[in-house]
Parts: sequence; C-alpha cells; structure tokens
Amino acid sequence: MNANVTVYITLKEGVLDPQGSAVQKSLHQLGYDSVEKVEVGKTINVKLSGESKEDVKKQIEAMCEQLLANPVIEEYTYVIEEVLSV
Amino acid sequence: MNANVTVYITLKEGVLDPQGSAVQKSLHQLGYDSVEKVEVGKTINVKLSGESKEDVKKQIEAMCEQLLANPVIEEYTYVIEEVLSV
Repeated sequence: MNANVTVYITLKEGVLDPQGSAVQKSLHQLGYDSVEKVEVGKTINVKLSGESKEDVKKQIEAMCEQLLANPVIEEYTYVIEEVLSV
Repeated sequence: MNANVTVYITLKEGVLDPQGSAVQKSLHQLGYDSVEKVEVGKTINVKLSGESKEDVKKQIEAMCEQLLANPVIEEYTYVIEEVLSV
C-alpha cells in the first residue's frame, strides 16, 4: 500500500521548552496578554510504501526511534492515511 | 472562554524544503528505501483566553500573520478546543 503518514512530535511533560517560552514572550510583547502557555512541536510528513498497514506502522515506528524523534525527551504520535491510486 | 489552540504550519507548495530533503536522505541511508517524500512542518500549541470563539479565532489569526508563520512561504491551519473548567 502507498501511505501518507503524519508524525506529530512534542516534548515530554516536564522537559524545558525554550522555543515555546521565547514565542510566548514575543506574543506578550506584541500585546497578546491573554496567552498563558505556548509549546512548539514538529510535524514530519512521510510518503512511503509498505506491504500492509502493519508494515507501514512498523517502518514508521522504527524511523521515529532511530531518527525522527529523540525518545529521551520527545514523544510522538502518528496518523496513517492510505493513498488510493487514481 | 479558555481555549487550547493547535496551529499547524507547513511550507507552501513549491517552496524548497531543505530540512525535509535532509531527513529523506538520512532515511535512505538508514535503509528505508520505500520513502518517497518527506516534509517537515511546525506545530504551535497556544493556551489563551478570549471573550468568545470568534475572539479567539481573531487573536490566533493575528498572531499567525504577525509572528507564528511567515505568510510569504508558509501556510497555516488551526484547531480550537474549548477548555471547560473542572
């Protein structure tokens, strides 16, 4: 199957997020006083093929552990969409 | 209302994505030959308050135009969740 996978990577609870804090400060300086918290994450969209949905899942999880995410400080979720040929 | 907004920022069609290309090359080097394309984007989670859903929407769009996204090369979508007090 051809798949379109979106991986959402965020920092684990309790890990310092300096990028989020910087954005939050900038928003306050621009006058957005109602902002309470900002967190910054990544999305990685991967187009790939696999023998089955299970195979795609296995490949994506291996990629996340090996390269896409840092399992020490980040966690990830993903959504798999099947691409049907037209 | 208290809101939890997730903003998804991606590069516009046709804009070069060197970060995506770098990740794709690394995946190929690691043996993931079935990967056809990789695109990297950002998510920004903002907790804020507003008078109404419309007000939250207006604030978020202004933030995106002013700071969070670069309207020349990036496009954004967002999801607003209302946080109900417990």
